[in-house]
Amino acid sequence: MTSERDRYFEDFKAGDRFESARLEISEALIVEFGRFYDAQVFHVDREAARDTVYGGLIASGLQTIALTFKLFLETGTLAASSLGSPGLDEIRWKKPVRPGDTLQVIAEVREARPSTSKPDRGIVRIAYTTVNQHGEPVMTMVGNQLLRRRS
Amino acid sequence: MTSERDRYFEDFKAGDRFESARLEISEALIVEFGRFYDAQVFHVDREAARDTVYGGLIASGLQTIALTFKLFLETGTLAASSLGSPGLDEIRWKKPVRPGDTLQVIAEVREARPSTSKPDRGIVRIAYTTVNQHGEPVMTMVGNQLLRRRS
Repeated sequence: MTSERDRYFEDFKAGDRFESARLEISEALIVEFGRFYDAQVFHVDREAARDTVYGGLIASGLQTIALTFKLFLETGTLAASSLGSPGLDEIRWKKPVRPGDTLQVIAEVREARPSTSKPDRGIVRIAYTTVNQHGEPVMTMVGNQLLRRRS
Repeated sequence: MTSERDRYFEDFKAGDRFESARLEISEALIVEFGRFYDAQVFHVDREAARDTVYGGLIASGLQTIALTFKLFLETGTLAASSLGSPGLDEIRWKKPVRPGDTLQVIAEVREARPSTSKPDRGIVRIAYTTVNQHGEPVMTMVGNQLLRRRS
């Protein structure tokens, strides 16, 4: 059995599934991110957000992307072998994330293939689903991860 | 002529192009984001990052996504009419962003189409290219933006 923190490219196969810890999202965390990165009224101002289509403060979708990767990274799955990522695809925000929501990430391997140009690594395609405390998906995305092979 | 901060759905057409201001990215900004959202060694530890494939500290790609939207948002283009976004596609990290790099975003409208279900809004598809101080693309992505129509 491979330990969570000692996985290399060869240890990933389609269908592998990882569940993150849960993280409660505070209003302060939403507003801090929003003020610098995405200062739209529904991300930064609790009172004014009430008069928007969202009816209240919601997290920036950019923050949800970052929180999703944070929760996955903290499983340790990439700890031994990560060489970074060439990109992400199909990011879809499905429901607003509001102050007090608790997020969890389920990551599932779609495909694992060796690099054609670099023999020391492979590319693993991972589908992420971020759910709230009601089990409702708030975001989905697909990412490619470059991973080192066992030497 | 439409002012930058008074654009509605009807004011966007394919080929419209927006250039952001330039922002210098400090080591502190990279490390602050990395520590919470993406604590891989090449995003958080200047010394240890030297021994990685990146040869030094680089910004989390998730931070580059957020900085790209920040710079675009600060042009004011979405100020009057933004209703949020359903998603992003085809995020590609092309070159590392390092401390001291200066980023600028060029956004180009690909398509503008009315919503089929909600008559008060439309969807504008925007291609973003984030370049560094050498004019080299560091990231590209495509986003969909929901925009209010003039009432």
